[in-house]
Amino acid sequence: MTFSISAQDPQSKARTGLLTTDHGSIQTPIFMPVGTAGTVKAVHQRELETDINAEIILGNTYHLYLRPGLDILRQAGGLHAFNGWRRPILTDSGGYQVYSLSDTRKIKEEGVTFKSHIDGSKHIFTPEGVMDIQRTIGADIIMAFDECTPYPCDYGYARQSMEMTHRWLDRCIDRFDATEGHYGYRQTLFPIVQGSTYTDLRRQSAEYIASKEREGNAIGGLAVGEPAEEMYAMIELVNDILPADKPRYLMGVGTPANILEGIARGVDMFDCVMPTRNARHGILFTTEGIINIKNEKWSRDFSPIDAGLDGYASTFYTKAYLRHLFKADELLSGQIASLHNLSFYLWLVRQARAHIEAGDFMPWKNQVVDRFMQRL
Amino acid sequence: MTFSISAQDPQSKARTGLLTTDHGSIQTPIFMPVGTAGTVKAVHQRELETDINAEIILGNTYHLYLRPGLDILRQAGGLHAFNGWRRPILTDSGGYQVYSLSDTRKIKEEGVTFKSHIDGSKHIFTPEGVMDIQRTIGADIIMAFDECTPYPCDYGYARQSMEMTHRWLDRCIDRFDATEGHYGYRQTLFPIVQGSTYTDLRRQSAEYIASKEREGNAIGGLAVGEPAEEMYAMIELVNDILPADKPRYLMGVGTPANILEGIARGVDMFDCVMPTRNARHGILFTTEGIINIKNEKWSRDFSPIDAGLDGYASTFYTKAYLRHLFKADELLSGQIASLHNLSFYLWLVRQARAHIEAGDFMPWKNQVVDRFMQRL
Ligand SMILES: [Zn+2]
Ligand SMILES: [Zn+2]
Repeated sequence: MTFSISAQDPQSKARTGLLTTDHGSIQTPIFMPVGTAGTVKAVHQRELETDINAEIILGNTYHLYLRPGLDILRQAGGLHAFNGWRRPILTDSGGYQVYSLSDTRKIKEEGVTFKSHIDGSKHIFTPEGVMDIQRTIGADIIMAFDECTPYPCDYGYARQSMEMTHRWLDRCIDRFDATEGHYGYRQTLFPIVQGSTYTDLRRQSAEYIASKEREGNAIGGLAVGEPAEEMYAMIELVNDILPADKPRYLMGVGTPANILEGIARGVDMFDCVMPTRNARHGILFTTEGIINIKNEKWSRDFSPIDAGLDGYASTFYTKAYLRHLFKADELLSGQIASLHNLSFYLWLVRQARAHIEAGDFMPWKNQVVDRFMQRL
Repeated sequence: MTFSISAQDPQSKARTGLLTTDHGSIQTPIFMPVGTAGTVKAVHQRELETDINAEIILGNTYHLYLRPGLDILRQAGGLHAFNGWRRPILTDSGGYQVYSLSDTRKIKEEGVTFKSHIDGSKHIFTPEGVMDIQRTIGADIIMAFDECTPYPCDYGYARQSMEMTHRWLDRCIDRFDATEGHYGYRQTLFPIVQGSTYTDLRRQSAEYIASKEREGNAIGGLAVGEPAEEMYAMIELVNDILPADKPRYLMGVGTPANILEGIARGVDMFDCVMPTRNARHGILFTTEGIINIKNEKWSRDFSPIDAGLDGYASTFYTKAYLRHLFKADELLSGQIASLHNLSFYLWLVRQARAHIEAGDFMPWKNQVVDRFMQRL
């Protein structure tokens, strides 16, 4: 993997860059749609490429490990061959899902034992095992196995957890560097900064992560319920320490405002289930603001979903038709809304890139952020 | 509407034709995907046009009348404007859904009173009312209001019901001919032959329907549980009476074999929920036979869903990936399977047309029908 900075905003830490993998290049800042079980829910692969213009998608290690399982993925030739997505893929470490989805999980120094939420079967994730799993899935970017602390989290637990995450990171690096990919292309490992919302822990963690000198770095444990201002303060603190010449990935974030504020603080990569999950519940992000399409007020609005975008779903279908599909519980409702929301998110980061390159990112951001977040 | 026969098969009643409406032309024999509530379930409008090559779709009067309702449809400018499908639309009369979906329906000479399956509200469908509703929906082809008898059905009830269907037809014709479309394009009314599986009733009904000299005619009340041979016998009998220079529409049929046998007996138009409903349950129609994609045997089959077709869903995705999506209960499963099954059905009628024009329809049909129906 290589990364180069193309432009630097004069008034903020925002920058544009180019991240290159063996599956192609990614322009940053970028938003990565979440493809949990090898599919971005309700979206065809060609729609991701040609309508949404996604440059990289996520896969979830926990889900893919349980289903279809590693045997099938290996036999298919990895996740790219299995699902037909030929551009870059990033996989999380599975930790977050183990903590949130599985039953009777038990965290020890060795790793985490858990029961599958599907069939109750027992499994263990260790740092070494999770490296092997992600090698087999075949992601271009692999995440270190960490513990993501909840919010609020008491100081003692946050420190202990962070220290264990650092020890786990060393084990991840040892295993990753001692192994090779199975499918002939390169993979890279991103470590993750933790430390909850404690300034000294975040600083300590960022310094530890930076010292590993990997090709990119991630910030985890944010957007877990803390106030946005606290999240932004942590991002600023951490990004001052993480190397400026490496991509920075803010995990699981967030709203359009969160993304613009993250970009302003030097974040290059984002992922979140929000555009797809909200879509399936009828919440649309548009260039005019946020719409609950199920509301009666849209029932006779025959204007396009978002005339400010140029994609198929946003301009071809009307608000009234989409509302009807939601009221009638039709599958097409989630398809249209997912396609639209992801189109908006990718448009948002493209706009941000253009304004960083034009040198007016901050005035633009300050002008649009309230509009994108207002409820219509 | 105009209809012209292009080719006649030398060994059967099969023929090709061109049916022209103000929303464009339809090559026959044709299969019409069912778009119940103004959407062919799980399929985008552009996929219907460019992947499936659908030339006409159905809408269900019962569903559209209840939701979104006539006010919204009229304000939108009709169903074409509401859902964005610019090619021809046919609507059923709502009768079949009233009988099968609604609560406490009561059939009288005046019409049918029923309670909505959505909110329990009370409604009445009369022949006149159903003409007005279909005028407002704006279908190119409108169906007469009939009673579709179940199978088996005793002779006395079948006769009484048929006679009422004929009286209703007269009322439909009076109302249809006394009214005009709302949106500036022409609509046409097809009457429906009933008579259950009784030879004399079917003959009597076909003669009555033929005597009305409408622009096209339909055969209803079949594929309701009777043996296929009985259905084929009724089609033969009825089609010998219905005028040969008008299109014949066999309602609610059916399997690939049913469609080929119907074509051999002079049917020009078909519709059925089978390709889409079965798709959502993982049953795929392919050029090699019928697949239950949920079966374990497909879990490591990395070949395309159907290499014998050339559409996106059929050739891009593998059987193993589609099986995974069904096992993981992912929305994309129904999208891929629906797109594939409808592509197969439209390919099937295109193939039939090509073989009728080449003069070898019957040998081709006899060669492929068992293959298409075999369970893989
Ligand atoms: Zn999120
Ligand atoms: Zn059917």
